[in-house]
Amino acid sequence: MHPRRPQPAPPEALAARRDRVRAALPGLGADAALVTRLVDVRYLTGFTGSNGALLVGAGRDVLATDGRYRTQAAEEAPGVELLVQRAVALALAREAARGGRVRVAVDEQHVTVALHRELAGTGVDLVALGPLVQGLRSVKDEHELALLRAACAISTQALEQLLPTVAPGRSERDIALDLESRMLALGAEAVGFPSIVATGPHSAVPHHRPTDRQVARGDLLKIDFGARYGGYHADCTRTVVLGEPAAWQRDLHALVHEAQRAGREALAPGVPVADVDRAARRVVEEAGHGEDFPHGLGHGVGLEIHEAPMMGYDAEARLADRTPVTVEPGVYLAGRGGVRIEDTLVVGATTELLTATTRELLVL
Amino acid sequence: MHPRRPQPAPPEALAARRDRVRAALPGLGADAALVTRLVDVRYLTGFTGSNGALLVGAGRDVLATDGRYRTQAAEEAPGVELLVQRAVALALAREAARGGRVRVAVDEQHVTVALHRELAGTGVDLVALGPLVQGLRSVKDEHELALLRAACAISTQALEQLLPTVAPGRSERDIALDLESRMLALGAEAVGFPSIVATGPHSAVPHHRPTDRQVARGDLLKIDFGARYGGYHADCTRTVVLGEPAAWQRDLHALVHEAQRAGREALAPGVPVADVDRAARRVVEEAGHGEDFPHGLGHGVGLEIHEAPMMGYDAEARLADRTPVTVEPGVYLAGRGGVRIEDTLVVGATTELLTATTRELLVL
Repeated sequence: MHPRRPQPAPPEALAARRDRVRAALPGLGADAALVTRLVDVRYLTGFTGSNGALLVGAGRDVLATDGRYRTQAAEEAPGVELLVQRAVALALAREAARGGRVRVAVDEQHVTVALHRELAGTGVDLVALGPLVQGLRSVKDEHELALLRAACAISTQALEQLLPTVAPGRSERDIALDLESRMLALGAEAVGFPSIVATGPHSAVPHHRPTDRQVARGDLLKIDFGARYGGYHADCTRTVVLGEPAAWQRDLHALVHEAQRAGREALAPGVPVADVDRAARRVVEEAGHGEDFPHGLGHGVGLEIHEAPMMGYDAEARLADRTPVTVEPGVYLAGRGGVRIEDTLVVGATTELLTATTRELLVL
Repeated sequence: MHPRRPQPAPPEALAARRDRVRAALPGLGADAALVTRLVDVRYLTGFTGSNGALLVGAGRDVLATDGRYRTQAAEEAPGVELLVQRAVALALAREAARGGRVRVAVDEQHVTVALHRELAGTGVDLVALGPLVQGLRSVKDEHELALLRAACAISTQALEQLLPTVAPGRSERDIALDLESRMLALGAEAVGFPSIVATGPHSAVPHHRPTDRQVARGDLLKIDFGARYGGYHADCTRTVVLGEPAAWQRDLHALVHEAQRAGREALAPGVPVADVDRAARRVVEEAGHGEDFPHGLGHGVGLEIHEAPMMGYDAEARLADRTPVTVEPGVYLAGRGGVRIEDTLVVGATTELLTATTRELLVL
């Protein structure tokens, strides 16, 4: 389905991302930004190695990495200077300090106490970068949306291939491996996160990990999974039942289905994320199951499986156009079973559904 | 080969690990340690969730996690109190502060500037934990060694299954997927890290990622891979050749083979890691290829694929008994090809080789 390799981001898209950081520097009281989260470095340069940092200054961008990645960085990261040093952030701070007494913005939610001390020792003045890059990342450009669509299409196709093969006697672990193999065969570059396959009472554990438990007739079967493609993550959950569902299973599924619909329908640019959470949560609470929905409604998704905006009842962000998010209410009855239904969708004038596969209670 | 699930660490082994932290507190001038690295929390409690922190105090151990992991934490982490709060480190600092003005040791290489500020706001006095837990983790107990042996056995068996199937025309990506599928089928719980499969000139890129390039006669083929089992990582690299090797390929392989042997033979308890690096590097330098070996000789391996002790020429640690490390010299000739040979071994009175599969230049 996606036999071609994902295309790298166009150099002009990468440059535009860095220019948005540059444009924000005066407002932060900074002369330069020292970006240390690897995923932010990837977003701003295209570089995918495991050691790197980026300096975005007034007139130049410098990517630092170590010797292992010299060739790869030159290939992946167009339009930036390359500095080959193992202590990447420190090397960039020294580079910045060559410009005299400069103010360098760092991400205090990522830089450790020890690194901060080292950076300060180079003579630069450190100021707070805040969640600038994470905020930029939450709004996707067309290149990113294309990758995310591909990741989601691979994922739902793999699920649709898998479900007809599920029968009593197969283990959670076996089902998870099968699903993951299908995603890879369909063109995923990797499994985006360890798949959750939870049968029977295990389905009541929100983040259950697959075991050797065999699925049996009468079980709910909850599957939370997603492919990664070009660095972008799909996230999807479906809950099905083996054999004719009991009344409580049917009711539970219908409740979560209704809550999920309410959440999806609340998505729109400018809406506070807490309102989206509330729209879905109210449905669950009115059915008397508020206590059984112990997590937020969803989260942004992109280069990270969980990224801004987090959509909890106490979150403060507002949704923006072109922001992919998950909507994933769940209700879990300990010892009996649970249902979660999750889609990845893109907020916009019209919400775009990326994980387009049925949400009905499938009876296997 | 390993059909049974890995066994969890015995409760008494987990308690012994926490007691070693407790015993170190007076020397740090601390009343309690607040452990924030997830992998350290797992090591000390058995808890494998994605959000958690641990307080090791004079008379009690408290694990904090959020509502998603309430059931899992109770099952996985015996012998600790459980505190269910989303902001885990902050909740534990507040818990510690209930004991009055206490000194809490935190890992300044992990705690961010922002979190450190929040923790200080609870009224505890923060002191430096240093690399205490990482140091403890580098020396493995019998339970850990058993898991590591299994991870390595799965890995080498998968490679031995794979190699006879490699032939001109197969892509790097296809070979990587095949190898990873075999590891999973043999009982790996996951692929330990993205496999490196590098053919022809790509083998000269130390950390190449698989592409659609097809392996051809005359190519070197470098494969760096490993399974994860019970949380523990195998790490192994072999370089083979397709068809009769050219003289330069044979010489390059022989050189790296000799350097790797020198590194392995230098392993012993009490030896400075820099000496081990030097033993292997000298062989490469004397052949005039010092510049073409641009990385350290190896690293500790366990719950993380790269952990203490890092074995570079400028590292300062000494090897300890029961410490698993990799020995992985490589020589890379840009545009032509490279060779790396890597084993996972356990330092001891007699060095134990875990990745027991031939290092000879196999001709496929």
